[in-house]
Amino acid sequence: MLNFTFYTPTKVIFGKDVENRTGELVREYGASKVLLHYGGKSAERTGLLEHIRQSLKGAGVEYVELGGVVPNPHLDKVYEGIELCKKEQVDFVLAVGGGSVIDSSKAICYGMAEPDKDVWELFENKRKAEAFFPLAAVLTIAAAGSEMSNSCVITDEKTLLKRAYNDDIARPLFALMDPEITKTLPDYQTESGCADIMMHTMERYFNNGGSMELTDGIAEALLKTVMHNAQILHTDPDNYEARAEVMWASSLSHNGLTGCGTDGGDWVCHRMEHEVGGMFDVTHGAGLAAIWGSWARFVYRDCLSRFVKFAVNVMGIRPQERDEDTALAGIKALEDFFRSIGMPTNLRELGVEPTDGQIDAMAHSLVSAYGEPFGSAKKLTREDMAQIYRKAR
Amino acid sequence: MLNFTFYTPTKVIFGKDVENRTGELVREYGASKVLLHYGGKSAERTGLLEHIRQSLKGAGVEYVELGGVVPNPHLDKVYEGIELCKKEQVDFVLAVGGGSVIDSSKAICYGMAEPDKDVWELFENKRKAEAFFPLAAVLTIAAAGSEMSNSCVITDEKTLLKRAYNDDIARPLFALMDPEITKTLPDYQTESGCADIMMHTMERYFNNGGSMELTDGIAEALLKTVMHNAQILHTDPDNYEARAEVMWASSLSHNGLTGCGTDGGDWVCHRMEHEVGGMFDVTHGAGLAAIWGSWARFVYRDCLSRFVKFAVNVMGIRPQERDEDTALAGIKALEDFFRSIGMPTNLRELGVEPTDGQIDAMAHSLVSAYGEPFGSAKKLTREDMAQIYRKAR
Repeated sequence: MLNFTFYTPTKVIFGKDVENRTGELVREYGASKVLLHYGGKSAERTGLLEHIRQSLKGAGVEYVELGGVVPNPHLDKVYEGIELCKKEQVDFVLAVGGGSVIDSSKAICYGMAEPDKDVWELFENKRKAEAFFPLAAVLTIAAAGSEMSNSCVITDEKTLLKRAYNDDIARPLFALMDPEITKTLPDYQTESGCADIMMHTMERYFNNGGSMELTDGIAEALLKTVMHNAQILHTDPDNYEARAEVMWASSLSHNGLTGCGTDGGDWVCHRMEHEVGGMFDVTHGAGLAAIWGSWARFVYRDCLSRFVKFAVNVMGIRPQERDEDTALAGIKALEDFFRSIGMPTNLRELGVEPTDGQIDAMAHSLVSAYGEPFGSAKKLTREDMAQIYRKAR
Repeated sequence: MLNFTFYTPTKVIFGKDVENRTGELVREYGASKVLLHYGGKSAERTGLLEHIRQSLKGAGVEYVELGGVVPNPHLDKVYEGIELCKKEQVDFVLAVGGGSVIDSSKAICYGMAEPDKDVWELFENKRKAEAFFPLAAVLTIAAAGSEMSNSCVITDEKTLLKRAYNDDIARPLFALMDPEITKTLPDYQTESGCADIMMHTMERYFNNGGSMELTDGIAEALLKTVMHNAQILHTDPDNYEARAEVMWASSLSHNGLTGCGTDGGDWVCHRMEHEVGGMFDVTHGAGLAAIWGSWARFVYRDCLSRFVKFAVNVMGIRPQERDEDTALAGIKALEDFFRSIGMPTNLRELGVEPTDGQIDAMAHSLVSAYGEPFGSAKKLTREDMAQIYRKAR
């Protein structure tokens, strides 16, 4: 068990109709003019955006709007948001969306807080942020956990580089989370979200740096809850209770709770997926599911006790004579689960067939960004990662 | 499942030697002159206080001291602290201790933030707090969870009234938690702490208002972790890992996490114990253990599905033919566990033998404070509570 810091200042207001409190809360936090930042048509079509506008008006809060955030959110939209906020003298950013919109908002907040510096330098690992701008979120999809997390992932659409920057100052002031809002999501988005939620905990769970009985117990409970409710939602997408379980799990999975006492986790799958996402623009959670099995089979011998614990406590595998067999049965069981909710378990099922050259480029990009070797379950070289990509085809 | 708010802004810095960062952190949070508030001799004897003083001096932070906080902390000490802080122009309160010291510090912070009002009015339920004073804690016992919670319990030693006031503004800015510090605690204090930790989750778990699969899973994992490690510490008090599991559980058990989606919980055992604690000055966690079995047998039929779930998922009871029998087996198993760690399971074992008159007085006091009936697992009248006290003798 390692020393840790746990810091989750975001106030979560969770449940039916909480989005109606947006105006009141934004005002309570001192906003006078808000940037309303969102994605595409669904928030408009479902009436959510109109609800939010009315709530802001009702509270006497001015706002300007910037929509059009795409999955794997783009740097140019971030720059556009910063310019708009400066021009309109905005003093608060309100994200209405999922991880992409919240991350785009976070990047805008970094930019507004240090207006003389280029925000992309943070993602290039050239400097640390020294300030942040007031931010809150109305969540529309359970997946990324960005509503409580310190992380932010942006893609430079010119270079296709998808990069993360993590900083505790970026945790939103508050998050409004109404599970009802997620009922209109297509099944593939819902289940990709579930895969992403699980992976945020699994990235932390599979490590060789440290563990804690309480953290493991919480992580295992969370994974079982998400699996159970992902399956319910696959056939009964209107189930409020299941929507709520998954939504709350999305926040707890990535706010740090499931990493306490660990070395922070492995994060190789996330980084490998970011390369795929940057190059092919796939849905993040589905991309993670497509890579995980290949990664797991490559590393499990070097992190065997954790894979055995996962197999038994999460996947319900009866311990086999050889630990290797228990671990492999657990890996297979999770792949079976992914298939049962319509998730891919390799890149082809994801709809992506990278050439050898593209694979080498992705492995090269990873090593340029993070050095070599990296990972915690097993330290991986550039060639290891190329192999994992090839085996995932 | 009910709507909920989750708000835990306290930054936790957890692990070996973290207390050495006290000065640096207090300074980072803007303190120039600190009230160092603590209990008795143990913090001095172990050298902890001297460490803290050196850390403050090293960071160039002035301080004044006020020791002598007792278990079931007294209102007169709170008034003394407020006067001292005013006189010395203190701008930050640092609690070095457990729940009693942190609660005494919270009450001082309420008093300093609204210096023209009597702080006891909050505990008499006569008004709500409108401001709070900067507060941080160095934790020395895993039990009350006050280091992350919104609650504060003070006893007016003149009237023997022990009363709680809960407000989110009272959550400490940061908490330094070094499990090493708790190794010097007597076994009875350690195990009373474990009972208190468990009860903070169980008060929330046994309710008729709402539940959530994820919350239940986390609660059950936490309870099993505390039971496992309480037994380790009963024979191996120097076990760092077990100390750490219990210490982190103390915070998570009472920061709101194990109540998400519920009606907030039952809290009858806590309130009944507060009466015993006010009248007889017993150790809080032991007092809870002494009352719980009597309460559980009185209410379990009205909250049967929760008692069955608890029996199976926490106590490992095989489901019996009749749910009542499963529930009763779970209650007995928890009492057996309490005995195994040296905790009382009735008032006599606690060292208290209240007369009928004293029991009536306690039941009367409860109804004066909270009305009638109250509770969630089962709504209890004054006579019900008197019966539970009598059966607990």
